[in-house]
Amino acid sequence: MARLVMKFGGTSVGTLDRMRAAAARVKAEADAGESVAVVVSAMAGETNRLVDLAAEAGAGAPETRDETDVLLATGEQASAALFAMILRGTGLKARSWQGWQAGVQTTGAHGKARISDFDGAALGAAIDSGEVAVLTGFQGMTEDGRVTTLGRGGSDLSAVAAAAALKAGRCDIYTDVDGVYTTDPRIVKSAHRIDRISFEEMLELASLGAKVLHTRSVELAAAKRVPLRVLSSFVELGNPNPGTLLCPEDQIMEERIVTGVAYTRDEAKITLLGLPEVPGTAAKVFACLAEADINVDMIVQSPARGGEHANMVFTVSMGEVERAKAAIIAAKEIISFKDIVADEDVSKVSVIGLGMRSHSGVAHTMFSALASKGISIEAVSTSEIKISVLIRSEYTELAVRALHTAFGLDA
Amino acid sequence: MARLVMKFGGTSVGTLDRMRAAAARVKAEADAGESVAVVVSAMAGETNRLVDLAAEAGAGAPETRDETDVLLATGEQASAALFAMILRGTGLKARSWQGWQAGVQTTGAHGKARISDFDGAALGAAIDSGEVAVLTGFQGMTEDGRVTTLGRGGSDLSAVAAAAALKAGRCDIYTDVDGVYTTDPRIVKSAHRIDRISFEEMLELASLGAKVLHTRSVELAAAKRVPLRVLSSFVELGNPNPGTLLCPEDQIMEERIVTGVAYTRDEAKITLLGLPEVPGTAAKVFACLAEADINVDMIVQSPARGGEHANMVFTVSMGEVERAKAAIIAAKEIISFKDIVADEDVSKVSVIGLGMRSHSGVAHTMFSALASKGISIEAVSTSEIKISVLIRSEYTELAVRALHTAFGLDA
Repeated sequence: MARLVMKFGGTSVGTLDRMRAAAARVKAEADAGESVAVVVSAMAGETNRLVDLAAEAGAGAPETRDETDVLLATGEQASAALFAMILRGTGLKARSWQGWQAGVQTTGAHGKARISDFDGAALGAAIDSGEVAVLTGFQGMTEDGRVTTLGRGGSDLSAVAAAAALKAGRCDIYTDVDGVYTTDPRIVKSAHRIDRISFEEMLELASLGAKVLHTRSVELAAAKRVPLRVLSSFVELGNPNPGTLLCPEDQIMEERIVTGVAYTRDEAKITLLGLPEVPGTAAKVFACLAEADINVDMIVQSPARGGEHANMVFTVSMGEVERAKAAIIAAKEIISFKDIVADEDVSKVSVIGLGMRSHSGVAHTMFSALASKGISIEAVSTSEIKISVLIRSEYTELAVRALHTAFGLDA
Repeated sequence: MARLVMKFGGTSVGTLDRMRAAAARVKAEADAGESVAVVVSAMAGETNRLVDLAAEAGAGAPETRDETDVLLATGEQASAALFAMILRGTGLKARSWQGWQAGVQTTGAHGKARISDFDGAALGAAIDSGEVAVLTGFQGMTEDGRVTTLGRGGSDLSAVAAAAALKAGRCDIYTDVDGVYTTDPRIVKSAHRIDRISFEEMLELASLGAKVLHTRSVELAAAKRVPLRVLSSFVELGNPNPGTLLCPEDQIMEERIVTGVAYTRDEAKITLLGLPEVPGTAAKVFACLAEADINVDMIVQSPARGGEHANMVFTVSMGEVERAKAAIIAAKEIISFKDIVADEDVSKVSVIGLGMRSHSGVAHTMFSALASKGISIEAVSTSEIKISVLIRSEYTELAVRALHTAFGLDA
């Protein structure tokens, strides 16, 4: 009997009626002979409500993240219990499992714990006996028995981890979109669902701005080779709902150079002006940012020309601009620079595709497409399967549309 | 260092502000050198909300009591986490403990589980190290790791069980009244708080209609000899708040014949008319009620007079009247009676006091006081320390006032 993990997010279990619709999907899979483990999020809005309550109760206390986890965990616990009841109403055998009951062991980093061990034996035995297991997403237990949560996107991670622990044939992530798209359909009308995408491409897409899955879940699925499917919980049961399958790249048949176009406005550009033209200057800058625990993404160093000083451009995530500036200004004596300028009015637009490995000319196509629309490129970064450019924010939609067309994704 | 258990009910933790007031009491005890374990209920209204949700989700399912327990348990879990956060804000060390973490083992009777084992070692070590333990009331875990709840009044039971497991010097039950009263102060203006009451008397009071504590908690406190104090969480901290101490009777100094007057409208009278005057008739009636799992309280058998048939009167709790009637009517052939009449318009009024053991004449005083007000007695039942009478419901308040006066409780 094949094992299947089905994960339903907050909007998919947002009301008892939504839960009933989700339960009907579980019933269909179980009736088709699958051994099913379900992973549920808290009902939509509940986690935010609890976060606010924790903030109010914890005000003035030195540290409350562990107790915030105990509080937040009630959201998924309630969902799992209600979902199990509803499943029983469909005639299935079912029971809820909390993280601590299912053996989801985590690190003690409350609020952003990592799963350190997940023994699927008990859960596996339960589902193989014909009982649907409804597991609370987002949470686990430390070695010394305290409740933890895994952070935003943690329920997807729970689902992938459960699928790996159960050696499930597939992990279906039911959500409010019907799959992964070639780009944001709010920007490009001709954007379309991707049938299959490799883990690597999805990892780039997710880290470059696509919101549908968190990178942590994709990483884990890739590492454990868990086929992961993203599909809609809003398509009527019985209607076609293929979603997007994330799989190892050897299972991708289609010939594509570029699979998708992503963008993010969440990066800011910082320019350091008037740096001395001596070896080790860049090292000093990034040492000081690393010490402040700030991730740097794109880097462009302009060499000095004819007696002038050098400049340096790099990007950090929007939320860390002020900290980055402060860290560098604090080290002004050591780094020795004339001025620092932060610019939040930029976007990063990226094209991603496995085909780049074997096809040259992708950068040429990309830069030409942008140039033909009059869009200047302020920085570039590349990996084996993606090229990202930093542009003025106001050109974001124009750039995304131009690239979607240029790489033949409109079809 | 003495150990103390402090229990706060739903209204005492009904808002974060109420929790802060409760936390200030905990802080005062901890600062005075007590090792404190706190037991909390769900925030007022939360359990009812969850019960409704469970009813809606479980509609149509054959059995959902185990999952209802998982759902209900979130109420206390949230309270405990929030309370622990607030305690930390006062400068105390604190953490929450769920039933399964604290070793509260119960039977598997979901919704009305009994505590079968409570190993207080971990909890005791925690509080002796100077950390306040905030335990979720109302819940525990079965031997095979499922969450259970203890039924209404379960948080008091958790508190008494914790006090017993910790060998605490006292268990303080903070509630919305300032102690146990000689009778219901809404009926008798001169009703007053009792300073000390024996477990036995309290057990009678609770089972005869006093709402302040459930009999299960008093029974456990009596069995484990845990001094139990009921006091108000609404008296300003620092003001006198002695409450009522429940203790073994050898610690009661005061000389009292009657300690309190209780009443309940929750019983109904059933009359069986025209029973044959043959041995074994009563046995048949009560066998058939026992089979239907119906508890009978008061019983009066009127013997036949001069060729007439005998009648029988008994009382059952209001909620079981219809089932009791149905059970007897179904056995009409076997019992052989002429008619059955149910009367819900009755009250049971009781006087309770240890002094009855050594003082005669209590029944005489009671019946005279009622007779002087023109109140007829329809049935009587007695134990070593109480006398109960069944009267017309409309006389309830009059009877309670008359007895409060007759036994010198107005002073």
